[in-house]
Amino acid sequence: MEPPVQFDLTKEFRERFQQALDERDQTFIRQSLEDVNAADITSLLYEFTSEESKYVLDLLTLELRSQIINGLDSDTRKSFLKIFAVPEITAIINQLDSDDAADVLNELPVREREEIIARMDPVLASQVIDLLRYDDHVAGGIMAKELIKANENWTVVQCIEEIRKQAEHVTKFYAVYVVDDHDKLLGRVALQKLILTDSKTLVRDIFDEDPMAVETYLQDTEVAEIMKKYDLESVPVVNVQGQLVGRITIDDVVDVITEQAEEERQIMAGISEDVEEDDSVWRNTRARLPWLVIGIAGGLLSARFMGLFESEIERIAAIAFFIPLIQATGGNVGIQSSSLVVQSLVSQTMADDGLLKRLGKVFSVALLNGLVLALLVFFGNTLIFGYDKLSIVVSVALFAVVNFASLIGTATPLLLHRFGFNPALASGPFITTTNDLLGLALYFLTVHLFL
Amino acid sequence: MEPPVQFDLTKEFRERFQQALDERDQTFIRQSLEDVNAADITSLLYEFTSEESKYVLDLLTLELRSQIINGLDSDTRKSFLKIFAVPEITAIINQLDSDDAADVLNELPVREREEIIARMDPVLASQVIDLLRYDDHVAGGIMAKELIKANENWTVVQCIEEIRKQAEHVTKFYAVYVVDDHDKLLGRVALQKLILTDSKTLVRDIFDEDPMAVETYLQDTEVAEIMKKYDLESVPVVNVQGQLVGRITIDDVVDVITEQAEEERQIMAGISEDVEEDDSVWRNTRARLPWLVIGIAGGLLSARFMGLFESEIERIAAIAFFIPLIQATGGNVGIQSSSLVVQSLVSQTMADDGLLKRLGKVFSVALLNGLVLALLVFFGNTLIFGYDKLSIVVSVALFAVVNFASLIGTATPLLLHRFGFNPALASGPFITTTNDLLGLALYFLTVHLFL
Repeated sequence: MEPPVQFDLTKEFRERFQQALDERDQTFIRQSLEDVNAADITSLLYEFTSEESKYVLDLLTLELRSQIINGLDSDTRKSFLKIFAVPEITAIINQLDSDDAADVLNELPVREREEIIARMDPVLASQVIDLLRYDDHVAGGIMAKELIKANENWTVVQCIEEIRKQAEHVTKFYAVYVVDDHDKLLGRVALQKLILTDSKTLVRDIFDEDPMAVETYLQDTEVAEIMKKYDLESVPVVNVQGQLVGRITIDDVVDVITEQAEEERQIMAGISEDVEEDDSVWRNTRARLPWLVIGIAGGLLSARFMGLFESEIERIAAIAFFIPLIQATGGNVGIQSSSLVVQSLVSQTMADDGLLKRLGKVFSVALLNGLVLALLVFFGNTLIFGYDKLSIVVSVALFAVVNFASLIGTATPLLLHRFGFNPALASGPFITTTNDLLGLALYFLTVHLFL
Repeated sequence: MEPPVQFDLTKEFRERFQQALDERDQTFIRQSLEDVNAADITSLLYEFTSEESKYVLDLLTLELRSQIINGLDSDTRKSFLKIFAVPEITAIINQLDSDDAADVLNELPVREREEIIARMDPVLASQVIDLLRYDDHVAGGIMAKELIKANENWTVVQCIEEIRKQAEHVTKFYAVYVVDDHDKLLGRVALQKLILTDSKTLVRDIFDEDPMAVETYLQDTEVAEIMKKYDLESVPVVNVQGQLVGRITIDDVVDVITEQAEEERQIMAGISEDVEEDDSVWRNTRARLPWLVIGIAGGLLSARFMGLFESEIERIAAIAFFIPLIQATGGNVGIQSSSLVVQSLVSQTMADDGLLKRLGKVFSVALLNGLVLALLVFFGNTLIFGYDKLSIVVSVALFAVVNFASLIGTATPLLLHRFGFNPALASGPFITTTNDLLGLALYFLTVHLFL
C-alpha cells in the first residue's frame, strides 16, 4: 500500500481536468479518477458546470455515481439533478440508504418524487415512504431503516445468518437490536459479543438490556445531546408503542451538530437565511437585508430620540462625542452576556439554579465590569482630555449601561428559550439594536439630570 | 425491559438525595443510583459539594466511579480530584482508556502525575507516556492506544483470538487494523467481514486497502474535517514512518467539533477566556474585560476624533443624530461579511476562487445592500423627518460605510487566516471597533465635504 495520503486537488490537476473535459478525453478522466474516493470527486465537481459534471459522472460506475451525488450539498444537488431523467435518478436512489434516499427525494418536485417512488426498489420505497412522514428535524427524520434485528428467541448462529442476509443493505453497523415477537425493542448485542459467543447460545441470554433509545418525534438536537452525553455510536429509534422503527448513527449526529453551529453563527451575525458566500448575489443580499433594515429603523429611532436633546447638543457639542463609546460598550456587554446564556442552554451543562441566583451572579459580574470601565473612562476623560463635569456624566452613564445591557443580554435569551424560540436570536443584531437604543436613553437621561 | 427512558433529575429527587446525603443514608443513595447510567450520576454530582460527591462515589463500584470521573468536565475534575489521595486516583485511572487516562493525568500537578504513572498498570502507563508527548490539539493528542491489530499473515481465527484477548481493554471497535511485520499500517478488516468469512482465510486476502489514515501531528480540527468528509467512524493514526500508533473514533471528533463551535461563539462574543456562566464572578469578569477595554479605547478615540468637528456639531446638532445609524449599520454589515467568510473557511466547501473574484462578488452584494439602505434612509429622512441637505449627506455616507465595512469584514478574516490566526477573531468586537471608527470617519468626511 502507498503511504496513506489524501487526494490533493491541485490547481494544475483542475486545469488539466478542465482541458480533458473540453476535449471530451474519456480516457484521461477515467484514469485520473480511478482509486479516487467519492468524497474527493464530489469536491472536484463543484468546479465545473452541471453539464460537465454529469458528463464525468456518466463515465463512472453507478455505485460511485450514487455516492458522489449523495455527498453533494442539498442546494447543489437540487439544481444538479434537474438535468437528470427520472430513470437515471431512480437508479441512483436505489443505491442509497433509506435515510439518504429520503433526503434526495425530499428535494425533488412532488410529481417527480411520486414517479420515482413508483419505479423504485419496492422494499426501499416502503422504507422511504415511512421516513418521508417525519419532519427533517426529529429523530424520525434523520434515522435510517437499515438495521439488523434479531428475535430474542434466536440463536447466535441465526443472528449471524441474518447479518449475512442484510450485509448487502446495511453498510455500517455496530450492534444487533433484539426485539420480541411484537417488534418491541428489548435491547442489543454488540457485534464483538456475537463473535466471542458460542453459536448455539440464545440471543435472550447474551443481550444487554439497554435503555437508551429515542422516540421518533424527539428533536434532532436532543438526539445529538443524548448520544454525546452517553457516548453512543448508534441509537435505536422506537415509536410510541416501543417498537423498533429505525436507528441513528453518530455520523448523522455529526451533521446535526455542524448544522446547529452553522445556524447559530448565522443568527449571531444577523443573516436571516441559510446562505453561503458562494451563493448568488441576489440570495446573499436578500439574506442580509432584513436585519440591516431593522438596524436602520433603530438608527432612525435613535436620531428621532436625540432630536429631543437638540438644544443640549448645540450648547455642549462634546455630549455627542461619547455616543459611540456608550453604544459600543452596551453592545459588547449585551453580546457577551447573551452568548454565555446561549452556551449554557446549548450545552445544558448548567443545573437549573433558578432565575434569581443566576441574575444575582450576572449582576455581580456587571457591577465589577461596570466599575472598572467607568473608572478607566473617568481617568481617561479627566486626565488626558481635561473634561470635568462631563467626565462624571459619561462614567455614570457608562456604569448604568453596562448593568442594564448585561441584564437584557441575560434575560432575552432566557425568555426566548422559555417561549420556544432559538435563544441564539438574542446574540445577534436584535440585542445590539435594543442596547443601542437603551444606551442612548440612559446616556441622555444622565446628561439631562447632571448637566 | 421497561420502556426506554432517560433518568430524570427532578427537583424532588435532588432534594430527597440532598437529604439522604445530609443524613449519610447509604441505603437510599445506593438504591437510588442502582441502574442509573454513569453520565446521569455525573450530572447529579454537579449539584453537590466535592466532599458530598466523594461520599457518593465511594459507595459505588470502582468501575462506575471511574466512568463518572471520566465524564466530568475538565475544570470540575481538576478541583474535585484535589480531595483524592494518590492511590485512589491511581485506581481510577487504571480503569480508563489510554486517551482518557492521559487527559486526567494532564490536569494533575506534575509531581502527582509522576507518582501516579509510577504506580499505574505498566502497560497503560507506557501507552499514556506515549500520548502525553503530543499537544492536546493534534491527532496524537486525541487518539487512543487501544485498538485491535492483526498481522497480514494471520488467519481469521487468529484475529478473533486477538479480539478475545483485547476485548477487556478495547470497549468500542469497528474494525481490525492490518499491519506488516514492521507495524506499518496496510489496511483494515471490518468486523462484519470477520464474522462472515471462513476462519482459515488469511487476513491478507480479505483486508481493505484503506488509504484513510491521519498522521500524529495533524490538527484535531482537520482530523474532524476528514472524518466528516469521508464519513469514517474511526481512523487509524500513523507516525511519520507509517507505523500504526493509535486510532481516533468519531465520538472524539464530536468533542472536537463541539469545542470548536463553543470557542468560535466565545470569540464572536468577545469573550477572551474559556469561561462558563457558572464559573466564578472573578473569572467571568476577567474573561470579559479585555475586549470591553479595547471597545472603550475605540470609544475614546472616536470622542477625540469628533472633537475635530466640534464647531460643525454646534452649528448643526442634527449631524450627531445619525451617528448611531451609521455605526450600527457598519457594525452589522461587517459582522455579516466576516461570518460568511469564516463559515466558508471552517466548512471548506468553497473552492479557492481567487481573491479577486471573491471580492468582486462581495462588492456586488454590498453595492446592492448599500443602495437599498441609502434610499430607505433618504426617504425616511426627507419624507418623515423633513431634513433636506442632511438627508443626502447621511445616505451618501451610509452607502460608503456599507461598502467599506463589507470590504473590511471580508478581508480581515482572510488575512487572519493567511497568517495563521483564527479567522473567527474577525467576527468579534475587533471588527465592530474597527468599523465604528471607520464609519465615523467616513460620515464626518462626507459632512465636511457636503455641509
